Amino acid sequence: MIKVAIIGASGYTGAESIDIILRHNQAKLVYLSALPEECGAVEEVFPRFRGRCNLQIEPLDIDKLSGLADVALCCLPHKVSMGFVPKLLDAGLKVVDFSADYRIKSTEVYEKFYQVKHTDTANLERAVYGLPELFREDIKGKDLIANPGCYPTGALLALAPLLKEAIVETDSIVVNAVTGISGAGKNPSVKFHYPNMNENIFAYGIGTHRHMPEMEQIAGQIAGTDVNILFQPHAGPFDRGILSTVYCQPKGKTNGEQLTKLYNDFYTDEPFVQIRNDAPGAKDVAWTNYCHIFISCVKGKIAVFSAIDNLVKGASGQAVQNMNIIFDLDETVGLL
Amino acid sequence: MIKVAIIGASGYTGAESIDIILRHNQAKLVYLSALPEECGAVEEVFPRFRGRCNLQIEPLDIDKLSGLADVALCCLPHKVSMGFVPKLLDAGLKVVDFSADYRIKSTEVYEKFYQVKHTDTANLERAVYGLPELFREDIKGKDLIANPGCYPTGALLALAPLLKEAIVETDSIVVNAVTGISGAGKNPSVKFHYPNMNENIFAYGIGTHRHMPEMEQIAGQIAGTDVNILFQPHAGPFDRGILSTVYCQPKGKTNGEQLTKLYNDFYTDEPFVQIRNDAPGAKDVAWTNYCHIFISCVKGKIAVFSAIDNLVKGASGQAVQNMNIIFDLDETVGLL
Amino acid sequence: MIKVAIIGASGYTGAESIDIILRHNQAKLVYLSALPEECGAVEEVFPRFRGRCNLQIEPLDIDKLSGLADVALCCLPHKVSMGFVPKLLDAGLKVVDFSADYRIKSTEVYEKFYQVKHTDTANLERAVYGLPELFREDIKGKDLIANPGCYPTGALLALAPLLKEAIVETDSIVVNAVTGISGAGKNPSVKFHYPNMNENIFAYGIGTHRHMPEMEQIAGQIAGTDVNILFQPHAGPFDRGILSTVYCQPKGKTNGEQLTKLYNDFYTDEPFVQIRNDAPGAKDVAWTNYCHIFISCVKGKIAVFSAIDNLVKGASGQAVQNMNIIFDLDETVGLL
Amino acid sequence: MIKVAIIGASGYTGAESIDIILRHNQAKLVYLSALPEECGAVEEVFPRFRGRCNLQIEPLDIDKLSGLADVALCCLPHKVSMGFVPKLLDAGLKVVDFSADYRIKSTEVYEKFYQVKHTDTANLERAVYGLPELFREDIKGKDLIANPGCYPTGALLALAPLLKEAIVETDSIVVNAVTGISGAGKNPSVKFHYPNMNENIFAYGIGTHRHMPEMEQIAGQIAGTDVNILFQPHAGPFDRGILSTVYCQPKGKTNGEQLTKLYNDFYTDEPFVQIRNDAPGAKDVAWTNYCHIFISCVKGKIAVFSAIDNLVKGASGQAVQNMNIIFDLDETVGLL
Repeated sequence: MIKVAIIGASGYTGAESIDIILRHNQAKLVYLSALPEECGAVEEVFPRFRGRCNLQIEPLDIDKLSGLADVALCCLPHKVSMGFVPKLLDAGLKVVDFSADYRIKSTEVYEKFYQVKHTDTANLERAVYGLPELFREDIKGKDLIANPGCYPTGALLALAPLLKEAIVETDSIVVNAVTGISGAGKNPSVKFHYPNMNENIFAYGIGTHRHMPEMEQIAGQIAGTDVNILFQPHAGPFDRGILSTVYCQPKGKTNGEQLTKLYNDFYTDEPFVQIRNDAPGAKDVAWTNYCHIFISCVKGKIAVFSAIDNLVKGASGQAVQNMNIIFDLDETVGLL
Repeated sequence: MIKVAIIGASGYTGAESIDIILRHNQAKLVYLSALPEECGAVEEVFPRFRGRCNLQIEPLDIDKLSGLADVALCCLPHKVSMGFVPKLLDAGLKVVDFSADYRIKSTEVYEKFYQVKHTDTANLERAVYGLPELFREDIKGKDLIANPGCYPTGALLALAPLLKEAIVETDSIVVNAVTGISGAGKNPSVKFHYPNMNENIFAYGIGTHRHMPEMEQIAGQIAGTDVNILFQPHAGPFDRGILSTVYCQPKGKTNGEQLTKLYNDFYTDEPFVQIRNDAPGAKDVAWTNYCHIFISCVKGKIAVFSAIDNLVKGASGQAVQNMNIIFDLDETVGLL
Repeated sequence: MIKVAIIGASGYTGAESIDIILRHNQAKLVYLSALPEECGAVEEVFPRFRGRCNLQIEPLDIDKLSGLADVALCCLPHKVSMGFVPKLLDAGLKVVDFSADYRIKSTEVYEKFYQVKHTDTANLERAVYGLPELFREDIKGKDLIANPGCYPTGALLALAPLLKEAIVETDSIVVNAVTGISGAGKNPSVKFHYPNMNENIFAYGIGTHRHMPEMEQIAGQIAGTDVNILFQPHAGPFDRGILSTVYCQPKGKTNGEQLTKLYNDFYTDEPFVQIRNDAPGAKDVAWTNYCHIFISCVKGKIAVFSAIDNLVKGASGQAVQNMNIIFDLDETVGLL
Repeated sequence: MIKVAIIGASGYTGAESIDIILRHNQAKLVYLSALPEECGAVEEVFPRFRGRCNLQIEPLDIDKLSGLADVALCCLPHKVSMGFVPKLLDAGLKVVDFSADYRIKSTEVYEKFYQVKHTDTANLERAVYGLPELFREDIKGKDLIANPGCYPTGALLALAPLLKEAIVETDSIVVNAVTGISGAGKNPSVKFHYPNMNENIFAYGIGTHRHMPEMEQIAGQIAGTDVNILFQPHAGPFDRGILSTVYCQPKGKTNGEQLTKLYNDFYTDEPFVQIRNDAPGAKDVAWTNYCHIFISCVKGKIAVFSAIDNLVKGASGQAVQNMNIIFDLDETVGLL
């Protein structure tokens, strides 16, 4: 039984992580922490866990945590996380970190997009980007995993075969994505006040979204060359899911059948990636760790459609998938 | 052309009032005010008015307002309103007040439920409760109308014929209502954060909702005797509408046909009340000033179903209906 | 490993049953059947099961099924079910039946509300009503369980302690309930066409809903005397959940604290019933087998609020709970 | 008073047209027709019109219609419309046709995408494409207007200044759009059954949507050269609105400020087009005839965002705008 601590357990990805670990038969929750003002019995903080979990969410106490847990799912926000991850590592825990702090390898890019100095460059260097479908071998046995962003997960799984096989012009890529509002986190705001968001859909983060450099870095790694991505997120009136519609220009002639075969081959052994023959809906993957993909050729361009649940494959599910890999468990435990 | 000022124009009922007056061919907007931090061009505060309204929302200046407007739709919140209404009256305006401050005739009840001392009892006494279907004659020519609460409007229209004709036991009434979330106002909160409210429905204000004494006061007035109402509101995942399901015990034998005839007769000349032969949906009246009602007898009890749009018949539409009556216009102008 | 067949696997409760059994570590799916025109690979019929289930949904073949499975979750509609249940029993399977065919003990009442002659009265007599919180001992080891209706589950759990302790007037009960639209089944219709149902809420089945006699029968059984219930369902714009608001008249004096204590005692050992100190939301129990209850006294009346997921505790989850009891497994396996 | 007939009044665009004409002070409804099985009192067909409209929807009778009405808003579906439009014209009515039958000038393209022979090529030739912002002068005084498709309206208003000024590569354009479900029409279907569509979003019509050739034809007309557009529609969980996100490659250097100025100049006199400084939401224009546009430069590409209400500016509102132009009324009457 792997002993799991969740740091930052009072937010949406914390709750989702609790939910998954409660159904995981080779791991158990031993410790939950949050900011003091958000602590209390799990079942008070999240009524949906009444009767399912007796733990308290308590202020982080590294000394107490040390020895208690094998691994921390660190659900802290960007910038905050890098203040705690070194302590968690020092306490002997393996860490799957949900923030962006260990994803962007260039501190320059990180500091430009996150507007803060990186304070843990030592660990940054050794952190592995936790997209198992692409970096499984690197993840095995590691002690610090940078769990990917939700949008990059959906977009990179949609793009990887095209990039790997150098099929598309690397400056032609547009990622148009729509997310459900659980992606916005639990803090109330004007934009996501129910009467504003219901019956609405809008673009945001135009030219500035922080997942853009993350996508480009990993896409570049896959392609072995610089990749330029125009990433445009939108917020839509639903809870869960990211639907990514990816447009790009093929270098030469291709067609839907060839590309479908390529995708089927590329992902043939992947338990959580499903290549479809029709366009996936966000609801097809809601509450699951799956990514559904459909690829097509339209009027000389390629259009790829991918759907994930932003809280599962886009966050907590993928973190548990990474945890399973680290501890050499069957990768799908707790996730089917 | 009636010159209309909207006080508290930056909230949802303010916006709805702007919308209605813009389509009213015998009234025009001349002045909009709000708290300083919520001022600005209407089209900046509410993008939906871009190109439709060039006015500024500005901090209230009674001197400027005086002489400029004939009537104020006063959309201020409870407790705040009674601080401004006397000044608006002194400035020579007629006032349709959206708050509860002039609805509850007993200051004792008011002070218990609103937890504040009433500071304008002089005007309280002369204010008329602006439910035109029941008090039209009293409203005509008056200068201070207490615009009814959204829940009382739906419930009282559903109950009035039964009360007037003394058909039901006055201590048997249960009003079960579900409101859309525009009723919660524009300020973000945890309860109405999109990911909390979407796909959710819950009861609130159990035994304590402030519309309960308001309903009871007016119901008593209609019945000519004390009426005891158990009012239970719920919040549901939609923008607009209140669906009230009212249960009560008839004193003697009755049936659906008799009651339907009673309702048809009672409301026969009412432009905005429609008696249906089937259960109304909230969507049937959304964006309109109508109240749809269906009445039935089930297992020895009476069940009445009424639907209104909480922002229109439950607030701004009814206010304009009152305004039309005050100024002796056709009651339906701007509202069809 | 209990071998499970799902009969009528192509509908919503079929899919929910598949989902639950896939995560059940002491049961496995061995057979899925549906009408010929709805057959095919599970992952084609329900894209959400891609990669999770390799079975085919096939036309029912009792000979093949016999010997293959230990238990059938029979998700067929009312009237159809009683044509197949005898064959499933003859084939040696235990049966948890989702339809109403074995719930209503009086064939007269059944035939009035379902408008069809009952064709399996022999099994009707021996079937046990599968509400474990009330009839657990009767369920153990039985071979035919009538899985309760979704509305009766929510209402009866809300009412049981009051009825058992004879606290309320048995002719005073009103059950006002709102269901999510998964309760309407998978067949498209005008009422539940998205543009009609979205942003809408309405009452239906006024005085005629088939769950009313079911509630009354079981309520009477609990109370040991006839119980008269006015049950009024509504459809609301969300997927999952039933929120029941139950009103009734206490016989004598009581208060919220006494009642809360009564409920806590009554359900103290129940894994799936949670007594709350505040009103539950449908979202608190969505995707779970829990029932959350809050009880209060308001103005001399009792108001009880209960929330369940209509597809889980209201259908497939409760069926698996019953299956677990029949086979003497821990009742919560697969359901936490 | 212009006398208006609505042909095909029983669908969503018919209802929206009724709604608009009811508030139009220089036009009135005189005749409504639909298929025999969809006829009846307006208030029975659409409960939202109870008390607002006493007309009957009746089977089309051209003889009766002739002389009764000045103009027909013809809301019939594609392929059906061209069977009736010649008769309406012969009867002396002006016609604003909502179908695609008079939009596509090439019968070859029409017949390929609509899979039917065009049977009214004579009128096809003289029909004017009713996008007033671009073809106002052509519309004036004409008797047959092809009212634009909903998607083309949003996309073309977003693209027109770029095309007119030859700023972008004409083979680089991607139109990614999301529509609300009122766009799917009133007939129930599996895809738009509430439990399928709620909490969902998906792409459809990949490479095959009929609005693609319509967009390309008009775009080509604006640009004065062939334009190649990859148009990808999506369905999202809301009632009203189309959000179009348009990506394209500028020929030379440009920036957001230059483009914003271009757009402001281009649309400076247009009552219904608003150039924003931030991304518009579908809700900003819901229930209005407005199109809100925001234009930006991102990473060397241009991204334009436009929002319309598919039933208003995308259908019935634009039809009334066209009607106003034909009859030389103020273009905005009934639409503010």
